Amino acid sequence: MQDVAWIAVDWGTSHLRAWVMRSDGSVIERRQSTDGMGTLDPTGFEPALQKLCGDVLPVPVLACGMVGSRQGWAEAPYASVPCAPPGADAATTAKTTLEGLSVRILPGVKQARPADVMRGEETQIAGYLATNPGFDGVICLPGTHTKWAHISAGEIVSFRTAMTGEMFALLSAHSVLRHSMGDGWDDAAFAAGVDQAISRPESLAASLFSLRAEGLLDGLDPNAARARLSGLLIGAELAAMRPYWLGQQVAMIGAQSLARAYTSALATQGVPVHQTPSAEDMTLAGLTAAYTQIYGGAE
Amino acid sequence: MQDVAWIAVDWGTSHLRAWVMRSDGSVIERRQSTDGMGTLDPTGFEPALQKLCGDVLPVPVLACGMVGSRQGWAEAPYASVPCAPPGADAATTAKTTLEGLSVRILPGVKQARPADVMRGEETQIAGYLATNPGFDGVICLPGTHTKWAHISAGEIVSFRTAMTGEMFALLSAHSVLRHSMGDGWDDAAFAAGVDQAISRPESLAASLFSLRAEGLLDGLDPNAARARLSGLLIGAELAAMRPYWLGQQVAMIGAQSLARAYTSALATQGVPVHQTPSAEDMTLAGLTAAYTQIYGGAE
Repeated sequence: MQDVAWIAVDWGTSHLRAWVMRSDGSVIERRQSTDGMGTLDPTGFEPALQKLCGDVLPVPVLACGMVGSRQGWAEAPYASVPCAPPGADAATTAKTTLEGLSVRILPGVKQARPADVMRGEETQIAGYLATNPGFDGVICLPGTHTKWAHISAGEIVSFRTAMTGEMFALLSAHSVLRHSMGDGWDDAAFAAGVDQAISRPESLAASLFSLRAEGLLDGLDPNAARARLSGLLIGAELAAMRPYWLGQQVAMIGAQSLARAYTSALATQGVPVHQTPSAEDMTLAGLTAAYTQIYGGAE
Repeated sequence: MQDVAWIAVDWGTSHLRAWVMRSDGSVIERRQSTDGMGTLDPTGFEPALQKLCGDVLPVPVLACGMVGSRQGWAEAPYASVPCAPPGADAATTAKTTLEGLSVRILPGVKQARPADVMRGEETQIAGYLATNPGFDGVICLPGTHTKWAHISAGEIVSFRTAMTGEMFALLSAHSVLRHSMGDGWDDAAFAAGVDQAISRPESLAASLFSLRAEGLLDGLDPNAARARLSGLLIGAELAAMRPYWLGQQVAMIGAQSLARAYTSALATQGVPVHQTPSAEDMTLAGLTAAYTQIYGGAE
């Protein structure tokens, strides 16, 4: 393989994703395995990387995500808000055995009050700021644990996490509600759920079981049940995150289907979403920005 | 075995519980198996009952719970609120093969708007009303799916369900929060969670992940984390159920540890809980009341 300059790595709990890169920031090849941090002990990281990318090693490796947690390859201590997304100068160097292999891991970001942490999303934010210099406003990163970050003057000022994606997965697949859930979608039912949860967030605890009861008594369509559950949970999240989105410009970084759901929920509150780049593109842009800090720009 | 007059049965999703009874309502013996409705097909109910109580059959059997659902032994159609807890006259007779065996199943109760259902709790309510004639107020039945029922003039006027117990089980054992949870308890952390959720129910979605973050950043005690999660969820439930408990007298039917948690949460809102009989005692009292309707009182 020609022109390989470095490898960008997004190493999360469940997946290892790698991009074989040219020095000009273009991608030669994308690779992926299920050797996530959750399946590895500290000695397992280098073998997992060699298994996925051994043919192009040794070249410099820049990584972000849970690989930098205490249970990861090497702990990359959190930066504290307010701060710019941590760059290469803050990276931790992992111990390696392969001659000539350099692995740098970018830190996550923490907040003292209210306590919160991120690992991986800060690199997506770095990528967004690298491609949108001067952005001021709020970045929402929907996912298993959705993050809301207030950005000003190139810094993460504050952020919060909502476990909405994980709650949806647990309730739709592992609670009594699973008997009433389909695999499809219903825009109107989603909107009704959002509206109900935003206008009466205090009633959420009483509204979930209604999905089951309406299934039993009224034959509620299973796709509508699934969409309304999503709407109730995203609406409850928006109610909690009001200080983040109210009167702000919002950029949304995430999978397109999820970004669309959040965007339509925010639209009901009159909040426009200006951009919805993919999480993968932003991770890569963030890692590339860090690479450029160390090795300079395109040749 | 002498003096066996009938068998009282509480047949839920996961368990089959039976009490061998004298005609005067006293218990000769308590038996239990894991042949819950969830593990049986329609032909499996009579063999499961014979396995547990074959030595004393045939005697009359009176049952409540999920055994009367569409997937149960025989469907006992829901009674609709407002109604008294359904008695023996509303029971469905199950088909049996054993000569002389009579099995009657008590119906559940449904509510059209907001849609809600119960199966089993109505018999506990019947038992409470049989032992507390003239009770007017609210009955709370904490559990996997906690029920709140408004009782007036011997009738269930309205009721609502909160999935608090199931949410707690999913979040504490199957979400990312499991890494921060102990097995113990902390009264102050529970009270803080209740207070936070009642005073700011709209912030719930943002407050759950803090348990994980405080564990990582501040070494939050795992028992305090577990108790605060319980407090947040019960507080959110109380916020949703305010129309039920505000200015009411509340009776609590349920397991003692859970009843104690709900009672202390209600106490922070100035709501006294007058009685906390056990769910089992109330189920038995409700089934006994139904038996008496058919066969008369003590000889």
